[in-house]
Amino acid sequence: MKIFDYMEKYAYEHLIFFHDATTGLKGITCIHSTKLGPSLGGTRLWNYKNEDEAIEDVLRLAKGMTLKSAAAGLDLGGGKTVLIGDPSEVKSEAYFRAFGRFVETLNGRYITAEDVNTSTADMAHVAKETSHVKGLRDKSGDPSPMTAYGVYQAIRASAFKAFGNNSLKDKRISVQGLGQVGTFLTEFLHKEGAKLIVSDINQSRVDNIVSKYGATAVAIDTIYDQDVDIFAPCGLGAVINDDTINRLKCKVVAGAANNVLKEDVHGEMLKQKGIVYAPDYVANAGGVINITFENENSYDKEAALKATDEIYDRILRIFEVADKENITTHKAAEKMALDRIEKISKIHSIYIKPDFE
Amino acid sequence: MKIFDYMEKYAYEHLIFFHDATTGLKGITCIHSTKLGPSLGGTRLWNYKNEDEAIEDVLRLAKGMTLKSAAAGLDLGGGKTVLIGDPSEVKSEAYFRAFGRFVETLNGRYITAEDVNTSTADMAHVAKETSHVKGLRDKSGDPSPMTAYGVYQAIRASAFKAFGNNSLKDKRISVQGLGQVGTFLTEFLHKEGAKLIVSDINQSRVDNIVSKYGATAVAIDTIYDQDVDIFAPCGLGAVINDDTINRLKCKVVAGAANNVLKEDVHGEMLKQKGIVYAPDYVANAGGVINITFENENSYDKEAALKATDEIYDRILRIFEVADKENITTHKAAEKMALDRIEKISKIHSIYIKPDFE
Repeated sequence: MKIFDYMEKYAYEHLIFFHDATTGLKGITCIHSTKLGPSLGGTRLWNYKNEDEAIEDVLRLAKGMTLKSAAAGLDLGGGKTVLIGDPSEVKSEAYFRAFGRFVETLNGRYITAEDVNTSTADMAHVAKETSHVKGLRDKSGDPSPMTAYGVYQAIRASAFKAFGNNSLKDKRISVQGLGQVGTFLTEFLHKEGAKLIVSDINQSRVDNIVSKYGATAVAIDTIYDQDVDIFAPCGLGAVINDDTINRLKCKVVAGAANNVLKEDVHGEMLKQKGIVYAPDYVANAGGVINITFENENSYDKEAALKATDEIYDRILRIFEVADKENITTHKAAEKMALDRIEKISKIHSIYIKPDFE
Repeated sequence: MKIFDYMEKYAYEHLIFFHDATTGLKGITCIHSTKLGPSLGGTRLWNYKNEDEAIEDVLRLAKGMTLKSAAAGLDLGGGKTVLIGDPSEVKSEAYFRAFGRFVETLNGRYITAEDVNTSTADMAHVAKETSHVKGLRDKSGDPSPMTAYGVYQAIRASAFKAFGNNSLKDKRISVQGLGQVGTFLTEFLHKEGAKLIVSDINQSRVDNIVSKYGATAVAIDTIYDQDVDIFAPCGLGAVINDDTINRLKCKVVAGAANNVLKEDVHGEMLKQKGIVYAPDYVANAGGVINITFENENSYDKEAALKATDEIYDRILRIFEVADKENITTHKAAEKMALDRIEKISKIHSIYIKPDFE
């Protein structure tokens, strides 16, 4: 892993290795960009096989956050943290307080939140040492419902594009993955009268949705082959790939999963097949939008919902740009995000003052 | 290079990779310890062959600064920066200002200064963006005279130990390396009536000292073989090694060079031969001591001299501890520095508040 080659290629700002001998805390924070504002990104705890794997993960994820926040029109840059360790062994109040003290040294240039294997309870310990943590339980809390609501808006916009109207009534929609976001999403879809086809590795989650909403359960390896109007990937990444793409019968791909396209070429292939694709990081931005409506001692849920509603119009604008320039929707979203960053950086010093936030 | 293995072994705090796309700035700052106070260490600009070489250098140098400041009784931790690039190509005001903006983000947990291939003029650009830079020209400026003065005190203390009195009159002293510090040192030694034997790769520097102080010039590869009382290495590191140690005829080794002993075993060998060794980072701490007498708009030279004088007593204390515990002076110095850090950390949170300085 050549760190600087990668940092130079994608204009990264900082990559910080931190370690606390007392608690055994070790991790890496990446600040990809602060051009639009302080960098924001969750803290993932993972037992990485080796150091390079952790470095690559945090670099990739931080850049993704830059694009997500820029595309969502937020005044936030992109960052991410990976903590290295076995979640069943390392977690403690002292451990997360030590991490909070580290976050505090970054003085607001990086704001953290929960992510894979960290919880709002863990972040409550972080918050004892720093104010630069979002998504706490007594404020905006779990971002999953708002993420799901935003994905629902992205699906409606995609339906409008594919079918000429945004009604989901009687539309056949397959939902892959019934984690927090996938589960909340089925509720929105069911309320509109959609017919649900679902899969998940956890059978009890599947049973729950089948009994609540009359969904049809299918085996996880057959979800791509279903005769549906809309496919909503809400689990793993890279599910649009060489193997799956010719099995799809849908007209729309729009879901909550990150990095849905295995490679750029799979975006091209969707375009050639006439499948409408709602770019993942635009569709699933509800969680990060939600966080920006946390104030010092309150959280404005109505305003957060209203801002998340805008994902509908944003997705339609991306479709317009993609059509006009004859590029994939994935490329159109990236172009719009990078254009915004470039315009703002011209009127804005690169350095974000610590009191910017 | 396994970064975390090394950081865990020696209790490192932070290692920060920074990059600025506009100016091409790229470098690494290591904050080894802030247990005694903000970390301080110079900024070295070097065209490293590869990334690992830069990482290893900055880790090693930052830890050395922790020991140096702790041994000198300063309220400073250890840090260092390496900038990666060709000094003849990368330097500019924009480049050093971008570096200054990075230093400012560290909010005083790291304080920088000039080092190899960076000058007080470069640091003046850094200072336009951050107050966390020391050794500016209009304040304490070039640290070399104070470093030389401290080495002179270390030589006097070592002479007291070896010869029963600290007079250098008529003592034969070989000085290896006539850079800034070596040159200033010869002036102090000459004033006391020492007989100088000098070597340097630069002939004009040698000629200068020969004509000013009547020194004897010798070829660089014969400096170890001279019949002298005291050997003062002021150039390269690792000059006490398997090849040189049996050629030495001196009773004292005390100089300004960093990392004089190639390995710990060479400290043992000096001890066995009855050669008094003044630990390098204790002897050459005058520069860093000097820096702490910079105030916001002034510099107290008299107080800096007085504090540097204390190197004399400090070296004698190290000799006492080494004798009492039958360990090398190198080990005694390290033990005293680590003891101090451990005692202070017990009454002191690990986290240094940004406004600590």
